[in-house]
Amino acid sequence: MSKYVIGMDYGSDSVRALLVNVETGEEISTSVYHYERWDKGLYCDPANNQFRQHPADYLAGLETTIKTVLADAPAGTAENVIGISVDTTGSTPVAVNKEGVPLALTSGFEDNPNAMFILWKDHTAIQEAEEINSLAKNRGGENFTKFSGGIYSSEWFWAKILRTIRVDEKVREAAFSWVEHCDWIPVVLTGNTDPLTMKRSRCAAGHKAMWHASWDGLPPEEFLTELDPLLAGLRDRLYKDTCTAEVKVGTLTEEWADKLGLSSDVAVSGGAFDCHMGAVGGQIQPYYLSKVMGTSTCDILIAPDNEVDGKLIKGICGQVDGSVVPGMQGMEAGQSAFGDIYAWFKRVLCWPLEHFSVEEKEKIFSRLIPELEKEAVKIGIGETDVFALDWMNGRRTPDANQNLKGAVFGLNLGSSAPMIYRALVEATVFGTKKIVDRFIAEGVPVKGIIALGGIAKKSPFIMQMCADVLAMPIKVVKSEQACALGAAMFAAVTAGYYDNIEAAMEKMGGGFEVTYEPVSADTAKYAKHYQKYCRYAELMEKEAGNEQI
Amino acid sequence: MSKYVIGMDYGSDSVRALLVNVETGEEISTSVYHYERWDKGLYCDPANNQFRQHPADYLAGLETTIKTVLADAPAGTAENVIGISVDTTGSTPVAVNKEGVPLALTSGFEDNPNAMFILWKDHTAIQEAEEINSLAKNRGGENFTKFSGGIYSSEWFWAKILRTIRVDEKVREAAFSWVEHCDWIPVVLTGNTDPLTMKRSRCAAGHKAMWHASWDGLPPEEFLTELDPLLAGLRDRLYKDTCTAEVKVGTLTEEWADKLGLSSDVAVSGGAFDCHMGAVGGQIQPYYLSKVMGTSTCDILIAPDNEVDGKLIKGICGQVDGSVVPGMQGMEAGQSAFGDIYAWFKRVLCWPLEHFSVEEKEKIFSRLIPELEKEAVKIGIGETDVFALDWMNGRRTPDANQNLKGAVFGLNLGSSAPMIYRALVEATVFGTKKIVDRFIAEGVPVKGIIALGGIAKKSPFIMQMCADVLAMPIKVVKSEQACALGAAMFAAVTAGYYDNIEAAMEKMGGGFEVTYEPVSADTAKYAKHYQKYCRYAELMEKEAGNEQI
Repeated sequence: MSKYVIGMDYGSDSVRALLVNVETGEEISTSVYHYERWDKGLYCDPANNQFRQHPADYLAGLETTIKTVLADAPAGTAENVIGISVDTTGSTPVAVNKEGVPLALTSGFEDNPNAMFILWKDHTAIQEAEEINSLAKNRGGENFTKFSGGIYSSEWFWAKILRTIRVDEKVREAAFSWVEHCDWIPVVLTGNTDPLTMKRSRCAAGHKAMWHASWDGLPPEEFLTELDPLLAGLRDRLYKDTCTAEVKVGTLTEEWADKLGLSSDVAVSGGAFDCHMGAVGGQIQPYYLSKVMGTSTCDILIAPDNEVDGKLIKGICGQVDGSVVPGMQGMEAGQSAFGDIYAWFKRVLCWPLEHFSVEEKEKIFSRLIPELEKEAVKIGIGETDVFALDWMNGRRTPDANQNLKGAVFGLNLGSSAPMIYRALVEATVFGTKKIVDRFIAEGVPVKGIIALGGIAKKSPFIMQMCADVLAMPIKVVKSEQACALGAAMFAAVTAGYYDNIEAAMEKMGGGFEVTYEPVSADTAKYAKHYQKYCRYAELMEKEAGNEQI
Repeated sequence: MSKYVIGMDYGSDSVRALLVNVETGEEISTSVYHYERWDKGLYCDPANNQFRQHPADYLAGLETTIKTVLADAPAGTAENVIGISVDTTGSTPVAVNKEGVPLALTSGFEDNPNAMFILWKDHTAIQEAEEINSLAKNRGGENFTKFSGGIYSSEWFWAKILRTIRVDEKVREAAFSWVEHCDWIPVVLTGNTDPLTMKRSRCAAGHKAMWHASWDGLPPEEFLTELDPLLAGLRDRLYKDTCTAEVKVGTLTEEWADKLGLSSDVAVSGGAFDCHMGAVGGQIQPYYLSKVMGTSTCDILIAPDNEVDGKLIKGICGQVDGSVVPGMQGMEAGQSAFGDIYAWFKRVLCWPLEHFSVEEKEKIFSRLIPELEKEAVKIGIGETDVFALDWMNGRRTPDANQNLKGAVFGLNLGSSAPMIYRALVEATVFGTKKIVDRFIAEGVPVKGIIALGGIAKKSPFIMQMCADVLAMPIKVVKSEQACALGAAMFAAVTAGYYDNIEAAMEKMGGGFEVTYEPVSADTAKYAKHYQKYCRYAELMEKEAGNEQI
């Protein structure tokens, strides 16, 4: 009888469970649960970039999706499930009490957004991130942001904690410790919820909390209290050690085993972030850039520890030993908006449709981007003067800068919607090239791109442009749920079915559905436009900097 | 019995006749004729900026509209018409034979666009304009562009002639001379069509043909032949003298008198350009800027000759003694796109409507700008980061530069269509301030704005913003057809009813329908944004300049 593993993938809007044959990687069944409170817009304030998620949504999704994938599988499957692994968005931390329970699940905090998970894209802590950067840079001695690309983001752990305890005294007093979403699900499943001893993800700690072995874990107490005395003592209630994702957190509690209809022998792996596990699901290899291309992009590259040899890669989001594959440096980069930019333009264009009925509006709305793309394809490279900067959501990499804004240049009275759409696409692809160029400039070769996510699957136009602009082949991962598949691979290793993640990738990987090869004539044409993009990017960044002063 | 005059106003798409009571300025009747061939798009190639108009369209419009205004007036009116005056767009020249007949009205040239009037907005002669500028600047000695703001435009007389005779040998050989539209109509009406003796407009000659008394008329033969030997001899077949618009060109020919049902005693005035006569129709006063605000703007300021005292105003389109009011320097400036920019944005936004039926599309299309404006009004000054540059059709003033392009900056994922619309409006209004600032910087005070044209009449939002940004009151002319009314005022002077144009303006002027007063708190807010506009304008212009090199 075959054995099975379950990969759980918590995304921004929904959670997915994927039941996988551990021998073949065959995807047996899958189930998606949309967060109920999130769908209603509860606890969020988009105008102020506040995005919170309730732990109860996560628990409901956990139970529902696992039960569904089991119910959809052939009889007898549940008994042969041997492991579960979880990936989530991040940094998505939550304040917990002494028992490791998120405050929103405790009395008096049920509806307090500050007692909930602070979603990765919540930008309420911009001020705190600036303070962290300023202190890290100016205090002398070790710069604790150095493995995070030298710039700490408002999307990350410490900024979010600091902001929350400043603005919410009740949460501050009730918060014994803080836990990342990717750590919380495994400890819930296994019952090891004591904040002082629970397993903490190397991926989350290293990329988002300035954890590094060379300074003995998290940044020292002096640094944190200098940042704000309110942080005093918290370090000791967090963690010193971290684990990579194949490490076993424990086995299912009797309660969860009963609830899910699984054995309490099922092994649960350490958590990690979605894109890191997605890179594994997409069978990443050294010096390949795994690119999850959706609303934004999350780019992961791995390189053997001994070849990186302590070198710091400037301006990326982070480099962490073992955050993707043990024994390799996992390097993270990404574009803070990609498909989101096309969606934004769609919203702008659809403004007139407010005057139509809902049905008519929907008809157009759903068809608009394909129609734009159809026209944009017909426009030759450089045929119009329209070009753009892709900073509509700031810039994540290279060199994070949240103050930057998007722009559209070269407009004349004949500039059409498809021309602007094409310019926006080019800008996002040029943003991709900026990241690849940075890796190369920092001495990290990039051999090719492994693409996953909605855009990789759906837009040959954009993918071909990526190949042409980057002058390198792009392989699109076959699996529709590479992140959950990557999690399943970790579950297989944790459960002891494979010796290491490389073996799991080889056996369970689903391969690639298509490879986009660069067309050299187009590469040459784009090169000229990329230079222009770089020139205007530099100008605009300089001017934005002047304005800040 | 009252006396009457007729003002003819040839616009870009149609010609209007206005029958006016010469004593009171009362507008008795009006008639508009849309050019038939132009409406069909004949002889034009918008993709290549070629815009031509057939003289037959002009003649049909002349006859139809005059007959209609007379037919619509009380019985006995026609007998009491004492004068006709004409304004047109410009520079809109045509090649004529020895008899002064436009080539397109002669055998073999009927359908040749190069034998037709080359409309002001035809930009086929960009290369020739550059050659003129280069020669004028580099040859040493007098710079013949100095009274045209130092930059000769592709929209003007010599550039258009040079381009046409280069590309069309047949036209070159058949062209005895060249005539501006505003000169051709009066000579047709009066029969004085000999190119060597026909009256030539000071306004057209001074603003568009580098005519100036100080160098004895048109630029010297050496200059022209150095530009291109093809021009040799043409100067002598053009003109040396020019006349201001109250000068009598003649009286109606018997033929035209019969055709129109008017007396052959009717006096016909010298022609001038529409905005110049519009300034008169709007009762311009010294140091007021008359602004015709439509798809683009045409800005006219007058200052007493003795006060200007030979001073050159840098970067405007031209300064010509008597081009508006005899005894005053008429200074011309303008924005190459104003309402055209809003219309462009409307077209971009309406792209999705292609999927709707024509009726539905029309419904939205006609309502879109008012709806955008309704929302844009609600956005506070500086409430969003979106801002724009209004160079979607290059820049006319200050410092003409056709290579500049429009841009939209400060975009984020929440930037909406109304925010962008508002930014576009602000950019056009800032463009207005740039012109006013230039006059002031050059020592020409600007006391206030007199606004006319569609936008002045229809958009309190834009007009109030103009007042706030400029920090000066803006008076909106009451007449719906100020240009034709200005022409009628000239006709009254030419016919001897008034001694001078100032007297005609006083008696026949219709006054103002509203004055927008600046709100000082808003002026202060806009001042900050204007600084930003200026900063980015400088950056972008510099970068565009670098690209040209």
